[in-house]
Amino acid sequence: MTAGSGSATRPVVGYANRMSRVRPSAIRELLRHGTDPEIISFGGGYPDPALFPVEELHRVYADLLTPAHAAALQYTASNGLPQLRAQVAERLTRDGMPATADDVLIIQGGQQGLDLAAKLVIDAGDVIITEDPTFLGALIAFAPTEPRYAPVRSDADGLDTDDLAEVLATHPDAKMIYVVPDFANPTGVTMSLPRRRRLIELANAYGVLVLEDTPYRQLRYDGESLPTLKSLDTEGRVLHLGSFSKILAPGLRLGWASASPEILERIALLKLAADTQNSTLNMAATSAYLQRYDIDAHIADVLPVYRHKRDLMLATMADVFPASVDFTRPDGGLFVWLTFPEGFDAGTFMAENLLPEAKVAYVPGATFFPVDHQPHHARVSFSGVPDERLVHGITALGRLLRRELG
Amino acid sequence: MTAGSGSATRPVVGYANRMSRVRPSAIRELLRHGTDPEIISFGGGYPDPALFPVEELHRVYADLLTPAHAAALQYTASNGLPQLRAQVAERLTRDGMPATADDVLIIQGGQQGLDLAAKLVIDAGDVIITEDPTFLGALIAFAPTEPRYAPVRSDADGLDTDDLAEVLATHPDAKMIYVVPDFANPTGVTMSLPRRRRLIELANAYGVLVLEDTPYRQLRYDGESLPTLKSLDTEGRVLHLGSFSKILAPGLRLGWASASPEILERIALLKLAADTQNSTLNMAATSAYLQRYDIDAHIADVLPVYRHKRDLMLATMADVFPASVDFTRPDGGLFVWLTFPEGFDAGTFMAENLLPEAKVAYVPGATFFPVDHQPHHARVSFSGVPDERLVHGITALGRLLRRELG
Repeated sequence: MTAGSGSATRPVVGYANRMSRVRPSAIRELLRHGTDPEIISFGGGYPDPALFPVEELHRVYADLLTPAHAAALQYTASNGLPQLRAQVAERLTRDGMPATADDVLIIQGGQQGLDLAAKLVIDAGDVIITEDPTFLGALIAFAPTEPRYAPVRSDADGLDTDDLAEVLATHPDAKMIYVVPDFANPTGVTMSLPRRRRLIELANAYGVLVLEDTPYRQLRYDGESLPTLKSLDTEGRVLHLGSFSKILAPGLRLGWASASPEILERIALLKLAADTQNSTLNMAATSAYLQRYDIDAHIADVLPVYRHKRDLMLATMADVFPASVDFTRPDGGLFVWLTFPEGFDAGTFMAENLLPEAKVAYVPGATFFPVDHQPHHARVSFSGVPDERLVHGITALGRLLRRELG
Repeated sequence: MTAGSGSATRPVVGYANRMSRVRPSAIRELLRHGTDPEIISFGGGYPDPALFPVEELHRVYADLLTPAHAAALQYTASNGLPQLRAQVAERLTRDGMPATADDVLIIQGGQQGLDLAAKLVIDAGDVIITEDPTFLGALIAFAPTEPRYAPVRSDADGLDTDDLAEVLATHPDAKMIYVVPDFANPTGVTMSLPRRRRLIELANAYGVLVLEDTPYRQLRYDGESLPTLKSLDTEGRVLHLGSFSKILAPGLRLGWASASPEILERIALLKLAADTQNSTLNMAATSAYLQRYDIDAHIADVLPVYRHKRDLMLATMADVFPASVDFTRPDGGLFVWLTFPEGFDAGTFMAENLLPEAKVAYVPGATFFPVDHQPHHARVSFSGVPDERLVHGITALGRLLRRELG
C-alpha cells in the first residue's frame, strides 16, 4: 500500500484538532506569483531588491567566513547573539523604549513573534482582538492555537478605541489585542496618539496582552513618528515586535521581540522549543553591518524611493480608477487598501479578469477579515515593483475596473 | 507601576495552559557553558568548528552577495528554494528513500521538525511514545502541545520493540512514536534492522505517526549503514527529519522534512504559520555549496576526526573511570552515555564537584527521561572539544569519580 491509498475518508494518522484550522492560504500562492516574471504582482509585501545593501553585506560576510570567525557557523545562545541584542536595544532606547540586551530576543522575522505570542496566551477558544481587516499572516500564525476572534473597526486614525471598549465589554476575558499601529497591513493607516493612550488604558483595565507589530515603523514618508504602544505601556503588558526585513533584507529572517522580563522570559522559552535559535551567521553579519555601517543613513536613502513609489501609485490610481473605487493614502509602509463598491468580488475579478487579461495580481481583501470576509476590497503593495511596471500594472487594473464598474 | 510590580501572585496577563509545561531547561544553561572558554564542556552536541568548510562557504557567499543575485536576500517560497529541495531529494533517493523536490520541506534545523510534528498530531493529553531516555530537545519541542509520555526501554540494539508492543497495547490511541534510530541522543546506540522492521509493523497496526530524527545518520565511524525507517515505511506514516547542522554547519540552521504528500502538505502549512520561511540567503548558499563542492568528500574528511575523538574518549574513560561506571560504545554520532551506580546523583555531583573543582561540564542524565528522571546518568559529547582538553577533562572527571565512588 502506498501513501494515501487507504480509505479515502480515513487519514493515515490521527491529526490534532488544530489542523482543522490550518488551511492553505492566499499568501503562499502570492509568494509563487512573486517569482513569476510575467506577472506584475502588487501582492507580497516585498521590499525593492535594488535597495538591499548588497556590497556592504558582501564585505561583512566575507570577513566573517574565515577560520578565525568559525564561531559564526556554530550554535550560539538561544536568545540571540549578545552584541546584536545590545544593538537592537540601543535602537529601541532611541525610539522611546529604554532597553538593554536582556530586554531583547532575536526571532526568525517578526512572523515568528506572532506564533510565539499566540502560544503564550491562547488556549483553544480564547479570544484575540484584532483590527478589521488585519494582517493575514497574523491570522495564519495564530490559527494553530485555535483562537476565536473579536474584530474592532478601524478608520483613517487606526483601530477605533470606542469600538474596542465595546468589544472588551462583550469579551472581558479576551487574552490579546493584536495591532499594527504604524502603517497597518493591509490598510496602511496609522493609529493616532490619543487612541494609542486609550488602548493602553483599556488593556490595563482588562488585563490583556497587547501584541504590537511594527515591521514598517521605520518606513515613514510624511509627518512625525508617534510613540509606540510599548513606550506608553505602564504595566509591562506590551509585547513589541520589530523586523530587519524591511530595513535591511527579508532573506536574513531576523526580527526581535521586546517585553517585560516576565513575558520575555516565557517567549524565549517558546523560541527555544520552536527552533533552538536563529542563524548564527546571519545574526553575526547583521551585528557587524550595524557596527560598520550606518543603517539609519541606509534607511534615509530608501525612504525617498518608496515615497516616490507611493506617490506614483496614488497619482496613477487617481488618474485611472473609476470614482466608485476608494483607496487609502498611507503616510508610510508598503500598502494601499482598495475599497470597491458593495457587491464587487475582488477575488473573482482577479481570477477571471485581472490575471488572465492583464497578468496583474493583488491580494483579494476577504482573507484579511478574521470573521466577516468582505469581498469588495484588495491590498496592493507599491514597494517591490519597478516604476514602469507599477504604472503599467495600475493602469491595466484601472482599465479593467472602468470596464467592470463604468 | 512598573513591569511585574503588581501582586506577586498574579501575572500581568493570562497565560495559556501550555505555559505550565514550558520551563527553563538544562540545554540553555549548557549552551551558555559552551561559550565560556574556561569550562571544558562535554555538554552540547557541537560539531568541531575546525571542520567547517569555511573557505568554500566564503566563496559561495561572496558570489551570491552581488547585485545580480539580490534575490538571495529577498523573500522566497515558504517550503524552501526549489533547487535545494531537489538536491536534498537526490540525497534521500541515494539513501534508499526515493524522493523528488516536492517530497522535501526545508526547515529551521531538525529541531523545527519536532515542533511541527507535535503540532500535527498532538492535542493536550495525547500520548507520545519515546525511547527512555530520549532527546531532551524533543521533549522541549513537544511540551507546548501538552502531551503525555509513554517511554519504551532501549538497550544496545536501540528501542526495544517487545516493550514497544506492550506500551502500544496499553496506549492504543498513542499518536506518535519518536525515535532517533542512528546513534541516538543521548545514548549513542543504533537500532537494529529487525527492530526497525518490527517498529513499522507495530506503527501500521496502531495507525501511529513515526517521527524519525536522523541528525547524526551520516556520522558513522564503524560498520554498515542500516535502512532508515522511512525506507521501510509501507503506509506513508513516517515523517523523516534530517539536518545540515552536523555535516555542514549548525549556524546556518538548515534541515529538512520528508513524508507522504498527505503529511508533508500539512507540515508545510505549519511551517508557513510558524516563521514564513528559512533564510533565503542560507538556502541559496547551501544549494550553491552542494552544486560546486562534494559534500560527501567533506563528510569523508570529517569522519576520521570524530572517529579518533570517540576512540580517544572511550580509551581515556577505560583508563580513568572506576569500574562501577558504565558507558556506551557508539558506532557513530556525537554522544557517549554514562551510567553511574544507583544512588549517585549526576546533577549534584556536577554542581558541587565537577564544575567548581575541575571546570568540566556534561549533561546530567535525569532530564533525558520523559517520566522517571533517573539521576545516575550523564551524557558526554566528544565532537566539539580539542584532543588535549578532551583527555584533560575526562581525566579530571575520572579522578573525581574515583574519589567519590572508590
